[in-house]
Amino acid sequence: MVKTQLRIIYGDTDQMGVVYYANYLRFFEAARNEWFRAKGARWRESESDYGIYLPVAEAKVNYKRPALYDDLIEVETRLGDLGLASLRFDYRVLRGTDLLALGHTVHACVSHEGNIREFPEELLERLRAGR
Amino acid sequence: MVKTQLRIIYGDTDQMGVVYYANYLRFFEAARNEWFRAKGARWRESESDYGIYLPVAEAKVNYKRPALYDDLIEVETRLGDLGLASLRFDYRVLRGTDLLALGHTVHACVSHEGNIREFPEELLERLRAGR
Amino acid sequence: MVKTQLRIIYGDTDQMGVVYYANYLRFFEAARNEWFRAKGARWRESESDYGIYLPVAEAKVNYKRPALYDDLIEVETRLGDLGLASLRFDYRVLRGTDLLALGHTVHACVSHEGNIREFPEELLERLRAGR
Amino acid sequence: MVKTQLRIIYGDTDQMGVVYYANYLRFFEAARNEWFRAKGARWRESESDYGIYLPVAEAKVNYKRPALYDDLIEVETRLGDLGLASLRFDYRVLRGTDLLALGHTVHACVSHEGNIREFPEELLERLRAGR
Repeated sequence: MVKTQLRIIYGDTDQMGVVYYANYLRFFEAARNEWFRAKGARWRESESDYGIYLPVAEAKVNYKRPALYDDLIEVETRLGDLGLASLRFDYRVLRGTDLLALGHTVHACVSHEGNIREFPEELLERLRAGR
Repeated sequence: MVKTQLRIIYGDTDQMGVVYYANYLRFFEAARNEWFRAKGARWRESESDYGIYLPVAEAKVNYKRPALYDDLIEVETRLGDLGLASLRFDYRVLRGTDLLALGHTVHACVSHEGNIREFPEELLERLRAGR
Repeated sequence: MVKTQLRIIYGDTDQMGVVYYANYLRFFEAARNEWFRAKGARWRESESDYGIYLPVAEAKVNYKRPALYDDLIEVETRLGDLGLASLRFDYRVLRGTDLLALGHTVHACVSHEGNIREFPEELLERLRAGR
Repeated sequence: MVKTQLRIIYGDTDQMGVVYYANYLRFFEAARNEWFRAKGARWRESESDYGIYLPVAEAKVNYKRPALYDDLIEVETRLGDLGLASLRFDYRVLRGTDLLALGHTVHACVSHEGNIREFPEELLERLRAGR
């Protein structure tokens, strides 16, 4: 599990005075980038090193408590299901010990042309080790 | 069912050359605003007229095909489950006849103080009529 | 001069209850896309037809009055200075007759490799005609 | 002068493969929040402590080199002109020693009702000390 800290700015909020709901998907992206970095990899290397892409096939968020302007939030990221050609990340957004949101993203493994491909064995090993 | 057309700009895309996944939640918001407007209401009136708010409790998107720069997309919005204190909207994002994405949002009915409240009877009638 | 209408959503606002200042640059982009479309062209065609790009070299906004949630705003776009390898667009953002903001963007004409290039003569003619 | 580091995500980029031009204004906001924090204050305290707001009256960006996905950029923020009822911040965006962008924002000091107000003396002292 990898933790990523993010500071909320005005541009993240809406006129309800809380973080706009779409921005949690931005936080999830920042968090899975850091998950890869913490594993000694970079999200982008999947493209340059292996010629594969990991587009989002599904995203879900459950909103529990609002994040507010100037909050320092923490996103906990875990690798969930890891298939031959897809993977899932699970996220928990916290402010201190308060759970603000839960969610997940599912990513397909595709070639540059957009066809489903199995993960290269080497990447699969790295992902398994990263759990 | 209410249809909303939206034009994709550079600012909606990312360097994969497709619309960034979080922006579909922006499109959903624009679409449910138009659903209300088509029913002769405004999303905001729930606040000023009834003193209630409809924050998002859950959001989900399934991504089928990417939306691209300069696409004119259409979001079809339907009112799904309508409970005493919550409602759900279902969305389909299309480019012509191509289905690009499916999703839903669930909204709780809360007071200004954030407590769960039943929908006012008058609003409930309007929502039912809107189906 | 070309007019573009845009509807403000929650996602455009911040917790001050007004449109977040960065979003005016999104509105400007939508508006200059429509300027090109109104001239029978598409922004992107400069890339596919002429092999040139028009990245933003400078952007400025003067904020006069706030745009609000659910406003239907109008952006008036004019082609300003047109040099051999750069151009400028001027924008006025209005709600009805109220002036909300003024601004401009300056764009360089560059090759795919990022070198400054003169506009192709054919494109220059079209831009001049578009004034 | 206060430095703020920011990590570029996919959601910051557009299909040109570089950071979308509007997002620099988000970076500027994050950076001036940190400027205030570094001075032992918080942007928001101007509201709760002094009843004043600092809306943006003008924003300008000059784009020199593109910021890219996964870049760790640094924003240098300086307090520029400090008037009785307005102030200006100047920003430099760097990647290592490469200058990516320059810009500024001008902020008016207004009351909750939106009327121009002089800075409270105490805040003015803190701002002057912060230079």
